Amino acid sequence: MAKWVYKFSEGRASMRNLLGGKGCNLAEMTYLGMPIPKGFTITTEACTDYYDNGKQISDEIKAQIVENVKWLEEVNGKKLGDPEDPLLVSVRSGARASMPGMMDTILNLGLNDISVEGFAKKTNNPRFAYDSYRRFIQMFSDVVMEVPKRFFEQKIDDMKAERGVKFDIELTTEDMKELVKIFKGIYKENKGEDFPQDPSVQLMEAVKAVFRSWDNPRAIVYRRMNDIPGSWGTAVNVQTMVFGNKGNTSGTGVAFTRNPATGEKGIFGEYLINAQGEDVVAGVRTPQPISQLQKDLPAVYDQFITLATNLENHFHDMQDMEFTIEEGKLYFLQTRNGKRTAQAAVKIACDLVDEGQIDKYEAVKRIEAKSLDQLLHPVFDAAALKAGEVIGHALPASPGAAAGKIYFTAEDAKAAGIGGRGERVVLVRLETSPEDIEGMHASQGVLTARGGMTSHAAVVARGMGTACVSGCTALVVNEEAKTATLGGHVLHEGDYISLDGSTGNIYLGDIKTVAPNTSSGDFGRIMGWVDEIRATKNFGVKANADTPADAANAVKLGAQGIGLCRTEHMFFNADRIPIFRRMILSDTVEEREAALTKLIPFQKGDFKAMYKALEGRPMVVRYLDPPLHEFVPKTQEEIDALAKDMNLTPEVVKERCDALHEFNPMMGHRGCRLAVTYPEIAKMQTRAVLEAAIEVNQEDGYNIVPEIMIPLVGEAKELKFVKDVVDETAKEVMAEKGVTIEYKVGTMIEIPRAALTAGKIAQYAQFFSFGTNDLTQMTFGFSRDDAGKFLDSYYQNKIYESDPFARLDQEGVGQLVQMAVKNGRATRPDLQCGICGEHGGDPSSVEFCYKAGLNYVSCSPFRVPIARLAAAQAILNNPDVR
Amino acid sequence: MAKWVYKFSEGRASMRNLLGGKGCNLAEMTYLGMPIPKGFTITTEACTDYYDNGKQISDEIKAQIVENVKWLEEVNGKKLGDPEDPLLVSVRSGARASMPGMMDTILNLGLNDISVEGFAKKTNNPRFAYDSYRRFIQMFSDVVMEVPKRFFEQKIDDMKAERGVKFDIELTTEDMKELVKIFKGIYKENKGEDFPQDPSVQLMEAVKAVFRSWDNPRAIVYRRMNDIPGSWGTAVNVQTMVFGNKGNTSGTGVAFTRNPATGEKGIFGEYLINAQGEDVVAGVRTPQPISQLQKDLPAVYDQFITLATNLENHFHDMQDMEFTIEEGKLYFLQTRNGKRTAQAAVKIACDLVDEGQIDKYEAVKRIEAKSLDQLLHPVFDAAALKAGEVIGHALPASPGAAAGKIYFTAEDAKAAGIGGRGERVVLVRLETSPEDIEGMHASQGVLTARGGMTSHAAVVARGMGTACVSGCTALVVNEEAKTATLGGHVLHEGDYISLDGSTGNIYLGDIKTVAPNTSSGDFGRIMGWVDEIRATKNFGVKANADTPADAANAVKLGAQGIGLCRTEHMFFNADRIPIFRRMILSDTVEEREAALTKLIPFQKGDFKAMYKALEGRPMVVRYLDPPLHEFVPKTQEEIDALAKDMNLTPEVVKERCDALHEFNPMMGHRGCRLAVTYPEIAKMQTRAVLEAAIEVNQEDGYNIVPEIMIPLVGEAKELKFVKDVVDETAKEVMAEKGVTIEYKVGTMIEIPRAALTAGKIAQYAQFFSFGTNDLTQMTFGFSRDDAGKFLDSYYQNKIYESDPFARLDQEGVGQLVQMAVKNGRATRPDLQCGICGEHGGDPSSVEFCYKAGLNYVSCSPFRVPIARLAAAQAILNNPDVR
Repeated sequence: MAKWVYKFSEGRASMRNLLGGKGCNLAEMTYLGMPIPKGFTITTEACTDYYDNGKQISDEIKAQIVENVKWLEEVNGKKLGDPEDPLLVSVRSGARASMPGMMDTILNLGLNDISVEGFAKKTNNPRFAYDSYRRFIQMFSDVVMEVPKRFFEQKIDDMKAERGVKFDIELTTEDMKELVKIFKGIYKENKGEDFPQDPSVQLMEAVKAVFRSWDNPRAIVYRRMNDIPGSWGTAVNVQTMVFGNKGNTSGTGVAFTRNPATGEKGIFGEYLINAQGEDVVAGVRTPQPISQLQKDLPAVYDQFITLATNLENHFHDMQDMEFTIEEGKLYFLQTRNGKRTAQAAVKIACDLVDEGQIDKYEAVKRIEAKSLDQLLHPVFDAAALKAGEVIGHALPASPGAAAGKIYFTAEDAKAAGIGGRGERVVLVRLETSPEDIEGMHASQGVLTARGGMTSHAAVVARGMGTACVSGCTALVVNEEAKTATLGGHVLHEGDYISLDGSTGNIYLGDIKTVAPNTSSGDFGRIMGWVDEIRATKNFGVKANADTPADAANAVKLGAQGIGLCRTEHMFFNADRIPIFRRMILSDTVEEREAALTKLIPFQKGDFKAMYKALEGRPMVVRYLDPPLHEFVPKTQEEIDALAKDMNLTPEVVKERCDALHEFNPMMGHRGCRLAVTYPEIAKMQTRAVLEAAIEVNQEDGYNIVPEIMIPLVGEAKELKFVKDVVDETAKEVMAEKGVTIEYKVGTMIEIPRAALTAGKIAQYAQFFSFGTNDLTQMTFGFSRDDAGKFLDSYYQNKIYESDPFARLDQEGVGQLVQMAVKNGRATRPDLQCGICGEHGGDPSSVEFCYKAGLNYVSCSPFRVPIARLAAAQAILNNPDVR
Repeated sequence: MAKWVYKFSEGRASMRNLLGGKGCNLAEMTYLGMPIPKGFTITTEACTDYYDNGKQISDEIKAQIVENVKWLEEVNGKKLGDPEDPLLVSVRSGARASMPGMMDTILNLGLNDISVEGFAKKTNNPRFAYDSYRRFIQMFSDVVMEVPKRFFEQKIDDMKAERGVKFDIELTTEDMKELVKIFKGIYKENKGEDFPQDPSVQLMEAVKAVFRSWDNPRAIVYRRMNDIPGSWGTAVNVQTMVFGNKGNTSGTGVAFTRNPATGEKGIFGEYLINAQGEDVVAGVRTPQPISQLQKDLPAVYDQFITLATNLENHFHDMQDMEFTIEEGKLYFLQTRNGKRTAQAAVKIACDLVDEGQIDKYEAVKRIEAKSLDQLLHPVFDAAALKAGEVIGHALPASPGAAAGKIYFTAEDAKAAGIGGRGERVVLVRLETSPEDIEGMHASQGVLTARGGMTSHAAVVARGMGTACVSGCTALVVNEEAKTATLGGHVLHEGDYISLDGSTGNIYLGDIKTVAPNTSSGDFGRIMGWVDEIRATKNFGVKANADTPADAANAVKLGAQGIGLCRTEHMFFNADRIPIFRRMILSDTVEEREAALTKLIPFQKGDFKAMYKALEGRPMVVRYLDPPLHEFVPKTQEEIDALAKDMNLTPEVVKERCDALHEFNPMMGHRGCRLAVTYPEIAKMQTRAVLEAAIEVNQEDGYNIVPEIMIPLVGEAKELKFVKDVVDETAKEVMAEKGVTIEYKVGTMIEIPRAALTAGKIAQYAQFFSFGTNDLTQMTFGFSRDDAGKFLDSYYQNKIYESDPFARLDQEGVGQLVQMAVKNGRATRPDLQCGICGEHGGDPSSVEFCYKAGLNYVSCSPFRVPIARLAAAQAILNNPDVR
């Protein structure tokens, strides 16, 4: 017979997968002989079994629960529902990974109309007993039976109003008794049956409710945000209740062994005398700092400090503890490795190394890679933030805090912001397009009404490190009138708003921000260890960058080069776009070549500046990729200007623009398909890259080996065709310049067929770079831009657990990556493989890339430190891989 | 040393791959002791070597050519370029597969300014000698040196005008001499050098030109149309010239051993006395029937009949022969298995079986599967066609001949055509959309200005068996004025035009058509053998059909059931579309369900009619697939009507329609994604299918097992979600009806990820149907609708050799198919696998499907006989596969 239930005394910390985090730590503390209210844990496997059985608890599991309840009654010398001296228990969830507040808790279970009387007598506190009972009815109804909480709260408010009192505490014993009566009435009205009096029914329903809560919508969202698999399930802890509200030798609190905000060493926490945990949360009374306990109950304080210190030393990490003092006796209800800010994490890890508790490898493992974002972007000043009024909330599309005057067009933002009048600017748009890039560059933050986490605004903002909140559907923008409305406020051009790109909050007014902090010595020490670890396995981190400023920033953040330079972004400048438009609307090769010839100096200049910023580091240049219609003029004004320029009628220009329209642009005339139909574009780009490299090598004495990347290849012959154009042009350039220069030609693997035929493609490619954005789109058959309409249903129905554009789909897309690496290297053993999709900055995807044998990951500059850390962690977590 | 050149006497018919078709048959005839002018063949491997070597003939190959020329000079007793009695040779291409007229031929090689004099003396015919020389210069210039033919023809025309004569034959010896001079001048002017006088230079250049011609644009197109790999290369045949224009005991002709149009047995052909092959083609003189030869040269005739009969008996197939009689001596210049019409192919195959020459398996192999199209659709009456004026040409999108009055809207076509006033109608549209289906049904033919071979018009017309010519860019349609212009003609509503959907020709006026002929006993015999062969391996053929009429037609054409019934087509009827629109524009589940409830009777009625038409055969019903915006109202009138119907303002209706817009609809909210977001749609469809099957089973005593197919699945849990909805609804329906009915749930495999995770998907799928249209789009990353802009460049640059939407890409898409079959069957050994993309009717793709282990193919009804034949051929050609 399988064992589905463990007494705390039967477990250990190592049994986290089975017992959940709370359960295994309660077991460990029991093992350490600490004061823990007795109890038992129903395993995560029981939860999985519950789901596999059509949401039923099996008889076997029920029997084991009943058996353990008996044991609990024996050791406590009390029985559940006993009329004289009832045993009360708490029922709480506890998953493998900490999911604070995501799932449900029921306290005071075991009370009923009869046992409440015994409890009242035994505690000599009828008000306390009835208060406990009404709390239990309320929690049980809400959590177990889905009778909305507000039905109950309304009744309390009504009663307080009737009595003319302000706080719950002012309600009398009789009031509590009446509330119990009213609450039971609400239950019956909603459920059509009486509130269950049998404690064993109460318990079994509560366990089921906790199992169910594993799949409540907020838990699903939390799991998606934190990469927690839905298959894990949650354990359930049934524990004897202790009460901190039994007078002045009782109390309750939470404490950390180090400051979770700063990492500073020392017990840090709050407690309330004569209170239950709920009261701390409710904010009715202000909690006291933990030091107050020393004055109130010095012996308990000393015991607490000793035990807390022991716990940290035992777990070698900062602990976050819940405790209750019942009539002078201290109980620990929970301990766990505490959540902390990135800044604290870095300090704690370094301190623990210095204290000899952990080594540098463990220190590197301890920092959550994603959290480094906090260190790299401005944050709001905590005090200033308290005064801020939230007027809206949308997607946290690019992290960081920003405050500035709003402008509604990229042009206005550019004139007002960085490089213009020097104001702090927040650009507010319906959505952004490539033409807005300069305006985005000039802004502190970007707010859009449309678009998801991978919309243009989001992707570009993340690349720039600019705060962005996107997809704010409540925002109504009137670009013409230069006004917007949000949360009932009308905003005019020049009004201040503030954005938090890490939370998605939008605030009225100008909230003070604090600059990012990467200068701490601890951060430098950690990143030093990180790079040391990466060097042992030669696992590189590069950046995606398209401008010299981004390139310089990437180098500053530790990038070993540019893994993706998107050349098309270079064409949107005001002095270039007209020439580019002439090129794409040309009717003949000659016209096109004439326009391209004019573009060479610009593109070459850009590349030279990039190479100089990189100081000799390598750069992968991707050739023109997007569908051409992205570049066409949109306003009549632009069309007229272009028509004049090209000596055509506006009608003809309009027609040619329309002819570029595509039904499915993502699957249209783009990528290397442009180079196949218009080889002259690839010629121009080759000339620009090679001339730039040759000149910078000569001017600065570098030995740059240009890396040319052909996008969207799906067939070996297609790559060969474009590579032939590149090679021919390279010969010409070298002959003209009278020098030889080494260069590499490689390809993006971003079309399923490229992965499927990688063995052949590698004949012509010296490197592969996985463009996992497109590869994900094609492999799943849905586009980033359109998936928003249905992905929510997919999350709700647990079909997908995470956004495949944020976290690499290892099963499908990953299979193609593995296949391509394997078959590509079979053809060309020294094939260099990297990734340059958004996934390059996602820690779990970085680990996958390491395991798949990639040589490097490339991500937006601001994610480089995250990727470096994730890369080192991948190496440490997979000692047998390479 | 490799052998690159074979004398005719060194080869055999079995060496086709090495020597090409012409070369190996010349060798075989030599082996048989037939009168063949001596010569040798340069192998296809030499051609491949030429391309591999950067388009150079290697020294080794050159040496072997020179050696064989020497031998040829010796056996003929003449030398190339000899001033007294020069040897003249022809240089002709000959690929493995016959590619008539696709590649180049050079005759009379060896003539120069000196040898022409000797040739004149030796033949005692200076006019003939100079005529031969000028022809050689012209051919060599055109074929070898790419000096356009028309430059030369213009000069001949000028000279005839000057001389006041009408025919070439009236030009004198002196005229010919002058033409030689003029032609050499043209050559020099264009090439900057003198016409080469050295015959060995002439020969080597001519060989290169033939190699080059393997890659000329029309050869590339021909190969794509006929599935001939570009890697095969062509052989080159160098053969002693013989002349049929040496007087009245000379002549030239072509003949077949059976009638290539009807298959009737007996020598059938034409010849011309005192003429060269060119003259037959030029049409200056009318060729005589071959029977005339019996009168002119009875001994030669008898010899010819004997040898021709021997050849047929030797090759066991109808032969197509070229021959020349030089001064009473008969020479065979070529023999090959003759091209024939489908009707002739069927008759010849059956006759050969009856004559004991071949068995039924060989007979089945002999019919080109694609050619059956000719038997299934009307064709133009040959005599009537001669009088027709071609006014345009576009894509042959759906085969068959059609003539009728033109109408410009589906409505008008419906009123005028089948089911209306009974006129014959040709529907002329800019492009068609799903709303035009009824109008297409009422028409004989469809002509569109836009759209490719896989446009809506093309796909639907092929499904209906209606003739269609699509993508006629020269056609200007003015729907409002009800006029169109094409080829300089203004066409009004009601004017007659005629279309040939097999050639793409568009004719003015009403050309008589002849009904298809599948009633011949021979056709039935062949298809009987075909089905017998298919039965041995249980390889099925089903049809894609959406209407009872199509279903009945499919059964008539031999389909074993419906492999794809697209349910969305059922919603476009005038009485249904408003309800469907209400459904998709509903704001709430309740509204949607109300609309769906109204749709059930329609859908159920359709399914019942389909099941009745199928008389117990199985049907796979695919649930709603297309993006919803395909259904939204387009005109203001429709919007107003819907607004009134839904009690909304037109503005709100417009807004909701706009909200359905997608950036990439192909990768958007469609397929099972609709069922995940709106499970009520899947519920409605399940109810309709199951109720229909139950009722038809009860009414007609069948035992229908409905097969429900969920489209666009990419993840096992997604299929499970929809399957759960189906299963729940099925339980409800069965309970209501008080019966149980077996049913199957399966899925389309049309997303790369579905193929990659097929092992998991098969847990929930009882069958897979490969939707290779979408799978091709996603695997290649381009959409059918947009690929037209660049595919031509891909063909021209030999990146793709065939249209992946017409012929399954076995390397990429095929790899996914194989993977899915293998992994799916690993999970569920009895998994049924089929294909329902357009490829299901393409013979080479059918063979791939057989080899990949599929249980059946499904294609449009009119392709069913083709697929049946191709399936039998696949079995015969791959005896070791299953």
